[in-house]
Amino acid sequence: MSTATQTVGGPAAPRHDRRRIGVGVIGFGWLGQAHSRSLMRIPTLFADRGFDAELVVCGDTAPERREQAIGSFGFARAAADGRAVVEDPAVDVVFIAAPNMLHVELVEAAAAAVKHVFCEKPAGLGLAELDAALAVVESAGVHFQVGFNRRYAADFQAAKKDLAAGTVGTPQLLRSLTRDPGTGSIPHAARVPAWTVFLETLIHDFDTLNWFNEGAEPVEVYAIADALVEPGLRDQGFLDTAVVTIRYSNGAIAVAEANFSALYGYDIRGEVFGSKGMVQAGRATETAARRYTAEGVSADTPRLNVELFRQAYTDELVDFAEAVRARRDARSDDAAPASAAYSLTPGAADARRALGMALACIESVKRGTPVAVNTEAVIETAVL
Amino acid sequence: MSTATQTVGGPAAPRHDRRRIGVGVIGFGWLGQAHSRSLMRIPTLFADRGFDAELVVCGDTAPERREQAIGSFGFARAAADGRAVVEDPAVDVVFIAAPNMLHVELVEAAAAAVKHVFCEKPAGLGLAELDAALAVVESAGVHFQVGFNRRYAADFQAAKKDLAAGTVGTPQLLRSLTRDPGTGSIPHAARVPAWTVFLETLIHDFDTLNWFNEGAEPVEVYAIADALVEPGLRDQGFLDTAVVTIRYSNGAIAVAEANFSALYGYDIRGEVFGSKGMVQAGRATETAARRYTAEGVSADTPRLNVELFRQAYTDELVDFAEAVRARRDARSDDAAPASAAYSLTPGAADARRALGMALACIESVKRGTPVAVNTEAVIETAVL
Amino acid sequence: MSTATQTVGGPAAPRHDRRRIGVGVIGFGWLGQAHSRSLMRIPTLFADRGFDAELVVCGDTAPERREQAIGSFGFARAAADGRAVVEDPAVDVVFIAAPNMLHVELVEAAAAAVKHVFCEKPAGLGLAELDAALAVVESAGVHFQVGFNRRYAADFQAAKKDLAAGTVGTPQLLRSLTRDPGTGSIPHAARVPAWTVFLETLIHDFDTLNWFNEGAEPVEVYAIADALVEPGLRDQGFLDTAVVTIRYSNGAIAVAEANFSALYGYDIRGEVFGSKGMVQAGRATETAARRYTAEGVSADTPRLNVELFRQAYTDELVDFAEAVRARRDARSDDAAPASAAYSLTPGAADARRALGMALACIESVKRGTPVAVNTEAVIETAVL
Amino acid sequence: MSTATQTVGGPAAPRHDRRRIGVGVIGFGWLGQAHSRSLMRIPTLFADRGFDAELVVCGDTAPERREQAIGSFGFARAAADGRAVVEDPAVDVVFIAAPNMLHVELVEAAAAAVKHVFCEKPAGLGLAELDAALAVVESAGVHFQVGFNRRYAADFQAAKKDLAAGTVGTPQLLRSLTRDPGTGSIPHAARVPAWTVFLETLIHDFDTLNWFNEGAEPVEVYAIADALVEPGLRDQGFLDTAVVTIRYSNGAIAVAEANFSALYGYDIRGEVFGSKGMVQAGRATETAARRYTAEGVSADTPRLNVELFRQAYTDELVDFAEAVRARRDARSDDAAPASAAYSLTPGAADARRALGMALACIESVKRGTPVAVNTEAVIETAVL
Repeated sequence: MSTATQTVGGPAAPRHDRRRIGVGVIGFGWLGQAHSRSLMRIPTLFADRGFDAELVVCGDTAPERREQAIGSFGFARAAADGRAVVEDPAVDVVFIAAPNMLHVELVEAAAAAVKHVFCEKPAGLGLAELDAALAVVESAGVHFQVGFNRRYAADFQAAKKDLAAGTVGTPQLLRSLTRDPGTGSIPHAARVPAWTVFLETLIHDFDTLNWFNEGAEPVEVYAIADALVEPGLRDQGFLDTAVVTIRYSNGAIAVAEANFSALYGYDIRGEVFGSKGMVQAGRATETAARRYTAEGVSADTPRLNVELFRQAYTDELVDFAEAVRARRDARSDDAAPASAAYSLTPGAADARRALGMALACIESVKRGTPVAVNTEAVIETAVL
Repeated sequence: MSTATQTVGGPAAPRHDRRRIGVGVIGFGWLGQAHSRSLMRIPTLFADRGFDAELVVCGDTAPERREQAIGSFGFARAAADGRAVVEDPAVDVVFIAAPNMLHVELVEAAAAAVKHVFCEKPAGLGLAELDAALAVVESAGVHFQVGFNRRYAADFQAAKKDLAAGTVGTPQLLRSLTRDPGTGSIPHAARVPAWTVFLETLIHDFDTLNWFNEGAEPVEVYAIADALVEPGLRDQGFLDTAVVTIRYSNGAIAVAEANFSALYGYDIRGEVFGSKGMVQAGRATETAARRYTAEGVSADTPRLNVELFRQAYTDELVDFAEAVRARRDARSDDAAPASAAYSLTPGAADARRALGMALACIESVKRGTPVAVNTEAVIETAVL
Repeated sequence: MSTATQTVGGPAAPRHDRRRIGVGVIGFGWLGQAHSRSLMRIPTLFADRGFDAELVVCGDTAPERREQAIGSFGFARAAADGRAVVEDPAVDVVFIAAPNMLHVELVEAAAAAVKHVFCEKPAGLGLAELDAALAVVESAGVHFQVGFNRRYAADFQAAKKDLAAGTVGTPQLLRSLTRDPGTGSIPHAARVPAWTVFLETLIHDFDTLNWFNEGAEPVEVYAIADALVEPGLRDQGFLDTAVVTIRYSNGAIAVAEANFSALYGYDIRGEVFGSKGMVQAGRATETAARRYTAEGVSADTPRLNVELFRQAYTDELVDFAEAVRARRDARSDDAAPASAAYSLTPGAADARRALGMALACIESVKRGTPVAVNTEAVIETAVL
Repeated sequence: MSTATQTVGGPAAPRHDRRRIGVGVIGFGWLGQAHSRSLMRIPTLFADRGFDAELVVCGDTAPERREQAIGSFGFARAAADGRAVVEDPAVDVVFIAAPNMLHVELVEAAAAAVKHVFCEKPAGLGLAELDAALAVVESAGVHFQVGFNRRYAADFQAAKKDLAAGTVGTPQLLRSLTRDPGTGSIPHAARVPAWTVFLETLIHDFDTLNWFNEGAEPVEVYAIADALVEPGLRDQGFLDTAVVTIRYSNGAIAVAEANFSALYGYDIRGEVFGSKGMVQAGRATETAARRYTAEGVSADTPRLNVELFRQAYTDELVDFAEAVRARRDARSDDAAPASAAYSLTPGAADARRALGMALACIESVKRGTPVAVNTEAVIETAVL
């Protein structure tokens, strides 16, 4: 397919048969580790799908994490620099879980080295540089996927399936929300970058809304944000609560909402109302258990992100792996059997669209007015 | 208490003892009729509360409705003009369910005649005229109540009770929505006044949000509205779908949402998220029955407004009647036993606050920008 | 229709036109009072259905209750003896809410006087005497209804409607349960008759199961009962907890279950599983409100019988009144419009069938073995 | 610990260090394969817990399954005879998923070879032979666990946790049910052994009830069973529907219920009602997604056993592995950290207790009367 993979997969390297995928991971924080752990499960869980993942090299600036990668996870080697991961000849795919500011240059470097890329969101912090990187992805012909894991949650997939089947009709009102679990204060809030609520949190909701309202483009956003959990940090520009309204080219109006400290645990929900009905996704309780006492009826609520989305975090990697395999086999038509009935894999256009919305939100907060999203789209039906 | 009631209640009219309340109803459409029907239940249902309602006079311009009022409902007499109702000496309380444009002048006339007033929303269509009418109410010392019946729905009351008990802490994010049942098109849409979605529908949601966020004032609104159900009527200014974001003086951010045609029936919900937790109100299913078939699990959804809020429509009248009795007994301290733990009765300030928000929304749609609500309030904590 | 009503409704008594129904109530405890209160609502609530109820005479042995009936409820007169109620010429219908041991003789007396009868359950305490009374009902041609109010609960009706529509297919497994609210001990338990759990409580569940499994006959029961709430009263024969398994002639197996002290409030549920699916009825929460806190999600549970079944207690009287009107109009074909799609009104056969099961349960507990229900029915398909 | 393991773990076999567990699997049907697949995940998923599983030998009579075990699952070798698995010196633990009739002799053989045993239910088909096998387990000092996987389902664990915390108080009424998904007929029903509904299906419910009512012993059962799904097979003794009532030594009354063909999918539920409240377990819907259409609200229901209990099937193996490790480390006190707050692992006594109930049920069906469970237990409080 490409020079690099031809070399790697050549007769001199029988280890790299079609079943083997050499994995490089950049950034070995909790997410890099979680992905590595999931990847270790793929060879056995999905052996019948025809490939095995091999943890080749882990890149992280912290020596203790590099040791952990080798000692506990079984990486063959480790490097302090992400570039070394990208350029490792035994690496076929690169997982980018480094700090946000490094994402876009690593995407570009990996694509330039003709490696398939899985990048955590946001894929970049500016549209121009992201466009440049994605152009390299395009020309290299590699698979690119961004870590919008929420698409893979079983209930969000069920909602999407209904949307694709026309159950809801034409979307008119949408809602997506993210409330992170907390205790009423935010640890290390002073060190959280100012626009995190848009660039890291609501970007998930933007993608969910875009995916649910597929075929339409976001046209305009109006964003309100404040420091309601940590009002003492407002002067430093820290924002922990935000509400965004979005107008789409098909006339649909969406609301995205985020807060960093829900005492009752994780609260991730989506809702689409349309001309024929409504679908909702979002898990309200941890398990099906219910208790009835003199105080009434009660149930436990989800607390851990990794628990809430355990299945989603795994399934996004399975989808990635299958897409990579399909590229290898040059049979792109069977790329994603799971998504036959509806689109699933979040790619370059999705990463760019959601980033554009987050950036427009930042501008909207600064100006205090609605702001156009950086697209050519207009609300087709708008007269007012 | 006042000249009028002293006369009516004097020795020459023993019929008007403390237990009797003479009722006048203006406007005998479905809501005027529904209230009349509920009032007929009050004497027997709540006889132990110490009063009886008597249907004295019904005002409506339609002769057949006047006949129905006497023949089927037992009104003593009927009149074509609302003024005749207001000035009838046997009338102690006036229910205003006439067309919206007449509300404010009837409120003022009834108060001037020293009659207690129950007025459907909106109490007026302009702030200046409403202020003038409410000033007469104030000086006459009569009880004034506006028909925000949603406060009386059992689940909204339960949520309010929790809010008053501090379960949620300080409100940070609120949501209220109204989706009317429909079939995908809106009957007589061409004759619906242009701003109905704000003045008649969302005004309920504004009051719910204000009530849930009690103690804070709405500061600014940003409204988006469109004709998504009936796009063909957009040119005529008809709006059937709207989303409003509201900033409150305590920093809380609220979203109100409305649509005129939900195929799955009535959908009325409220949600308050705060520093300690969240409460939700809104009934998802018609009954507790569930059916499980090869297609999955399903349940019926609420379809009729009058069914969904049957209890609320009755309870708002009971509350009104008790307030009137308390005024008569000059024992204002026991006015509303049901609301001991939290505020309940929607009065003059509530009617004005919600109207101010609806008018600001209209302005916001016209301008395409956020608009300040006509109050002195500012967001106390806002720095951005 | 009959001599008695011809006389009462004759030209000499214009007060008794077709719209008027003279009501006699025997037994003015909480249920007799509740029914009287509901009846007072019927004339206004359902005036368009063509009749008014008039509270003629109340029978109770307690003088203070008789005073209350006249003073607070508006009965024209009161009597210490139920016979006086039955024989009052102005009485068209008799409500029997007296102590259980008196039911059957009052049913017979009322029917002999050609009065329509609404009797609380159990209609009698022995099959022979109930059969005798029901024979008089039959020959008098009066309407007889037994107070199985659960049939009228909205969710049980919805389930029944699904069953009638074939949603569940052929019933195979059924469940009905009654758990009364309590505090862990039972007030006045020592004075509660020994077999109350079967004759007063589970008889509701038996009727629900029979109604849900319409067309089949109960063939055999096996009952277990114990004093688990009040073990100190076991020696006196008091039973507060029971589980009954029932085999029906169509092979279906049912379980009925009761307990007198559920700390979490009222718990009334029904479930039918069949060849095509399942339906469930039973309200788990008091309102649609939900609260989310650091402890999880919670909701209030139903506490008051009268609240839980407010609508059912009213609707069973509406159904009764309509049946009476239909008999008067001799148009039996429009007797019960609400039940067009499925059977609704619990009559003589239903009262007898449920009593037979309760009596068989008592026998089963005494013997410690399964006992045949006193019918000709056999399990049609049983081979084992 | 024992001669066998001393040899295997000796200096000459460094491969068998403390971290390695040699696994033998007998019976490679879907459950044997599912366990093998789960075991392959354990080394990576739970590497930090200190051990790795190694698939040593698979026993199955079918050559194609033996090939699959080696080719697709990575077993080192395969054998046609279960004895060869048990006696393989590299095997430390034996998983028995062979046909039921072979379970008890394999348990005994494995224990005699001083191997830890995980046996699918039922552990045996007769009490005497099971007792004999369990005596060998006891004297060999090996860990024995029976495949009551339902204990490990998250919602059942949550319910158990509440029970252990005293939330429910003293159990009075219990319910457990199993409805297998189906299409209205049962594939290969004619080949299903006659008493399967008790020995394979309801044995799960019996264990759940015993676990929920921990500390009490089942005293008496009354069982009803019939062929309602496949009535044509009734003459051959096939039973697809059963209801069992159980009396426990603490007075609690339980109901277990099973059916082989629920068109709406898997339905596994548990409920415990007691002096202080109630807990329920059982998942009603497949995901948190809900759809609202003109027909009402609906959701998907669980269909696949392996999906419904995916987590439970894995967790029971983790628990088993930890118990084995604890035995190796001779630190039995930290055997099951997950179950610190409540008992979890189903062992020899649990296997025997549930089998005793199933056998008593068979006797009850044959006799048509209640039958005592083969224990010394009596209902302590029973007087009746």
